[in-house]
Amino acid sequence: MQTFSMLLSYNGEKFCGFARQPSQRTVQGCVENALSLLFRREVPTVCAGRTDAGVHARGQVVSFDLSYEELRGRSIEGLLRSMNALTDEDISIRDFRQRNYGFSARFDAKWREYRYFICTEDAPAIFSAPFSWHLCGLDIPSMQKASQYLIGEHDFKSFCMAASAKDKPTCRYVSEISFQNCEIMGELQLVIKVVGNAFLHSMVRTIVGTLVSVGRGKRNPDWVAEVLDARDRKAAGETAPAKGLVFWEVGY
Amino acid sequence: MQTFSMLLSYNGEKFCGFARQPSQRTVQGCVENALSLLFRREVPTVCAGRTDAGVHARGQVVSFDLSYEELRGRSIEGLLRSMNALTDEDISIRDFRQRNYGFSARFDAKWREYRYFICTEDAPAIFSAPFSWHLCGLDIPSMQKASQYLIGEHDFKSFCMAASAKDKPTCRYVSEISFQNCEIMGELQLVIKVVGNAFLHSMVRTIVGTLVSVGRGKRNPDWVAEVLDARDRKAAGETAPAKGLVFWEVGY
Repeated sequence: MQTFSMLLSYNGEKFCGFARQPSQRTVQGCVENALSLLFRREVPTVCAGRTDAGVHARGQVVSFDLSYEELRGRSIEGLLRSMNALTDEDISIRDFRQRNYGFSARFDAKWREYRYFICTEDAPAIFSAPFSWHLCGLDIPSMQKASQYLIGEHDFKSFCMAASAKDKPTCRYVSEISFQNCEIMGELQLVIKVVGNAFLHSMVRTIVGTLVSVGRGKRNPDWVAEVLDARDRKAAGETAPAKGLVFWEVGY
Repeated sequence: MQTFSMLLSYNGEKFCGFARQPSQRTVQGCVENALSLLFRREVPTVCAGRTDAGVHARGQVVSFDLSYEELRGRSIEGLLRSMNALTDEDISIRDFRQRNYGFSARFDAKWREYRYFICTEDAPAIFSAPFSWHLCGLDIPSMQKASQYLIGEHDFKSFCMAASAKDKPTCRYVSEISFQNCEIMGELQLVIKVVGNAFLHSMVRTIVGTLVSVGRGKRNPDWVAEVLDARDRKAAGETAPAKGLVFWEVGY
């Protein structure tokens, strides 16, 4: 057997999340269906991050094994083309490559980067509407100050969907939370880049929602330290909408 | 009476073009319906450029007259908010302002700028797919060379939808065709900016389709001079898809 990985972009709006579920349109379902059409057997995949319904990806990674027999007479370029032809238009396979045998998209990931897009235009968003949360008048210096409490290794239990945190380790290492500006077809965006070793369920969206409570002036930046200490999801801010979140890149 | 203008963005995919048509969802229809709800009468509007079905706008301008009576007790900010509340989410009213009496969004326009987005990624586009034409491997220096034949005042009959050119003046002045690169959420775009005093029906899309024939190596840059001279739509390249075109800005 040999191990391969694919790099995927997808529009999360069109899927009920990454993870395969019976009678739901999921990214994993579409990708594994395409692999099974190509190789005439079930090909189980492992992903770097199981994105929720509505969350987009620019750089999701999935890994899987193929036998020498299955690869005979096929080129990597041909496999990439076939996979793009067999998956639908809401998924783009950007790369197909061989890895060391036993590579896992999930367990070998050293860091993961998410980007959260907030459209800061006064007028309603048009072009960026499917990919950003529309919010005006945020106090960005306060959000930056608040974000610094989250850098480093912490117990992020307050930032994890309560049901998912039960009896599981909730310590994670966040190496960067930074703020950039960009435009999507002329519409101004605040982009919050969050990098860490791994993330809990809804963790990035809860971090963004909590920073937005500060940005709206409802809370002081120092409040974020209290939220961390509480180890209770009810202490944090709202969960930011799924549509603004993009799983951007994974480092191995 | 007093004259006002509004600045509009819209997603062209959701409309059967700008111009009002019976039992079709059009931008003009939606905007005039909102104005008639607000002022309880029909309020005719004039636009800077009648975009075709599928063509987007970032900076469409419409003008219309209101009486002193109709304006009593209303602020410009209130009118802007009301219009955004009364039009649907695929139209954004970015500005509402008073103009000199008699101002016409159409006849007072000094220049118009269109931008055409071409996604140049190898992999299928995801985030920019609704707003760009996906084409790889274009020879951009040849397209730039070809574009220079179109700068200045010319008879653009070859670049006008044949039915619309019949017995009408077809001379126009193009002041700029330039090529830039940008990203839409990480997806690389070639942006062709076309500025001129006014444009014929499908003129920008025919210019782009003609330049793409050169970029694909089917024609030499010099061929564009022959296309201009022919004064016949059949001489030019294909009409580029509507979804890549954005009516960007109007100068007064």
